[in-house]
Amino acid sequence: MTYCVAVRVDEGLVFVSDSRTNAGIDRLSTYSKMFTFGTDGERSFVVLTAGNLATTQSVISQIKRDIKQNNVPNLMTVENMTEAAEYVGQLSASQQQKHSTAVAGGGFDASASFILGGQISGGSHRVFMIYPQGNFITATAENPYQQIGEIKYGKPVLDRIITRDTRLEEATLAALVSMDSTMRSNATVGPPLDVLIYAKDSLSLNRHFILQADDPYLLEIKAAWDEKLKEAFAELRRVNWNEPTSVSVVTEE
Amino acid sequence: MTYCVAVRVDEGLVFVSDSRTNAGIDRLSTYSKMFTFGTDGERSFVVLTAGNLATTQSVISQIKRDIKQNNVPNLMTVENMTEAAEYVGQLSASQQQKHSTAVAGGGFDASASFILGGQISGGSHRVFMIYPQGNFITATAENPYQQIGEIKYGKPVLDRIITRDTRLEEATLAALVSMDSTMRSNATVGPPLDVLIYAKDSLSLNRHFILQADDPYLLEIKAAWDEKLKEAFAELRRVNWNEPTSVSVVTEE
Repeated sequence: MTYCVAVRVDEGLVFVSDSRTNAGIDRLSTYSKMFTFGTDGERSFVVLTAGNLATTQSVISQIKRDIKQNNVPNLMTVENMTEAAEYVGQLSASQQQKHSTAVAGGGFDASASFILGGQISGGSHRVFMIYPQGNFITATAENPYQQIGEIKYGKPVLDRIITRDTRLEEATLAALVSMDSTMRSNATVGPPLDVLIYAKDSLSLNRHFILQADDPYLLEIKAAWDEKLKEAFAELRRVNWNEPTSVSVVTEE
Repeated sequence: MTYCVAVRVDEGLVFVSDSRTNAGIDRLSTYSKMFTFGTDGERSFVVLTAGNLATTQSVISQIKRDIKQNNVPNLMTVENMTEAAEYVGQLSASQQQKHSTAVAGGGFDASASFILGGQISGGSHRVFMIYPQGNFITATAENPYQQIGEIKYGKPVLDRIITRDTRLEEATLAALVSMDSTMRSNATVGPPLDVLIYAKDSLSLNRHFILQADDPYLLEIKAAWDEKLKEAFAELRRVNWNEPTSVSVVTEE
């Protein structure tokens, strides 16, 4: 499985993805799920992938091939971010279609989801979540992040911390904590982690970091968050559940 | 949707369930998902339900009918908790079978899951999670809780707090916080909440509380947990992501 999250705040974009892939329990491997495309100063794209590995790999290959062979459209020729999302959505839908018809039935699932984020010079920085069907939604002020894969474990912390005016570095930390909660509760999500921080209008993808499982900062955040959550829990007020009236509850029997 | 959690610690059992039910967006209603059966001093059972409401209601009705009509087996005659779990699992599987064959296809899903917990005099207190297929697993020292419904949002906090020697009141608070995280991130889970605290060997179900949406203690926990999580987050060490070497990460490009 997978967990990828992209946050869009006023200051820019943050992307965090895990890299554990399993196709059956004896094919547990590590694949990066973060791919970057662009030309410094002109356009920057980040693609995160979840779902069938054959599908996502073939989509990424096709994106590269289209650029190299100057096929139209490709990520270097699209005029805006929405067009880029449409392009990736169409590639994804057609790759899934191809693989699904080749092997019909048998519980085979070729579906894949993508997050596409970035900026084209002259436009604003945006994030899209692309469904297996190829259609997509975008991150907005009210929904400043998008997730794919195992999205639920890490959602509560994002809901509490992220708003559109959250600072870029804060958003990065929130995404890391969200990833940590997911890794804690789901063994199929794991390091190394890809982290990419994109400052609005920088049109540069040079802040792409890879955190290994033994990265000191990752270990520190993991331990500190665990400890602080336990402290927070210890500080909550306890009530005496033998005296229900003290908590204004009603005994049923 | 639904979220129900049952915790088994050395001191006893805790059950927390929400009560929001939706069968289509215009049939949003409130149904309790916690049902109790037993004879004080002899046997105590708590059943939590998730899934198709018609299935869960018919299972609960049948449990009551079997007791009233002295059908064998019933919850008042089973000799141990495992037998009780087998009985509920069989009822569930047969009710689903009945409804599934009546209306074939059409995306109709009659499936339901149950948590059964309790104690029979002379035996130990136990918790079972009963799958839609009717088979079941039990809470153990390594896995001291069971969940059904929207289980993922509220799992991280349980994983951090609950062990088998957690005090009963602490486990209650942890289950409430787990429920709060779920309600925060998923609109289909909501109050009133059923809370039942069962002290080992008490063989009594009299600590069953219903917390309404405006319950002062519930509101206090919700606000305090939100505030303390934000404080905990604020206390995490920030790093300068412009200087990757300071966090021992590798720049890819």
